[in-house]
Amino acid sequence: MSYAASKVVIITEKLLLEKVTALIEACGASGYTVVAAGGKGSRGIRSTGRAAIVDEFSNIKIEVITAERETAERIADEVAAQFFDNYSGITYFEPVEIIRPHKF
Amino acid sequence: MSYAASKVVIITEKLLLEKVTALIEACGASGYTVVAAGGKGSRGIRSTGRAAIVDEFSNIKIEVITAERETAERIADEVAAQFFDNYSGITYFEPVEIIRPHKF
Amino acid sequence: MSYAASKVVIITEKLLLEKVTALIEACGASGYTVVAAGGKGSRGIRSTGRAAIVDEFSNIKIEVITAERETAERIADEVAAQFFDNYSGITYFEPVEIIRPHKF
Repeated sequence: MSYAASKVVIITEKLLLEKVTALIEACGASGYTVVAAGGKGSRGIRSTGRAAIVDEFSNIKIEVITAERETAERIADEVAAQFFDNYSGITYFEPVEIIRPHKF
Repeated sequence: MSYAASKVVIITEKLLLEKVTALIEACGASGYTVVAAGGKGSRGIRSTGRAAIVDEFSNIKIEVITAERETAERIADEVAAQFFDNYSGITYFEPVEIIRPHKF
Repeated sequence: MSYAASKVVIITEKLLLEKVTALIEACGASGYTVVAAGGKGSRGIRSTGRAAIVDEFSNIKIEVITAERETAERIADEVAAQFFDNYSGITYFEPVEIIRPHKF
């Protein structure tokens, strides 16, 4: 009892949390998961320095699982269009297989 | 030197941590990884509110890698059967490729 | 506008953070993401005990996305060769699809 679904992952600056999650909901996703993250991107150091990565996370990793690939793509496109000219971030897709869709 | 394996991901309420990890071990998995998470599910707000997501994580994301797909499925089925009638949560599979199985 | 890429995931002890991220950069990756993690591995308890998993994370989960699969493999091989004889850890690959490569 499983079916293929899409997962879109957004890694960006923590201060965008409210805006990005509002956008995710506006795109029609029914839920998301947020994890605190540190790291470094190609456009410079993303967190406040490597030594502080674990203690002081300044990024967030947001994951959204959607039944429709289209929804995942819309979220990724909107996030990139609205925020990534001015903030660092990356979005990518991962294939997932949902096990209990009726509980999602 | 890599081989295909299964990863089962369980996102649920933090208070279930002990019970879910005990179940994972009872299913025969040799290890798991736990990350603190916040978020929102389709059955209502999962964390204590969006503003508090990063500061106050009330969910956990548990990942289990298993050599046998069957083990991953048993874990997912058991978690859903035992907990998801009364607690919010989601389980899904992701394909992974293990690089150093002898060190796992 | 997306293309296939590789993600290598490294889960290991927190005290290796500086060394592993230096190695990742030396291998030519342009960025990485770090998340605090707890858990248990096949070679014994990885964190300081199950009850403390969420409050006291002693592991890190590092994710590196690379355009070339070769880079991901080099990172995985080097991490295992340099650290996994003396420290617990696991590395694995996941397939991803990058959406905005020019912003990565």
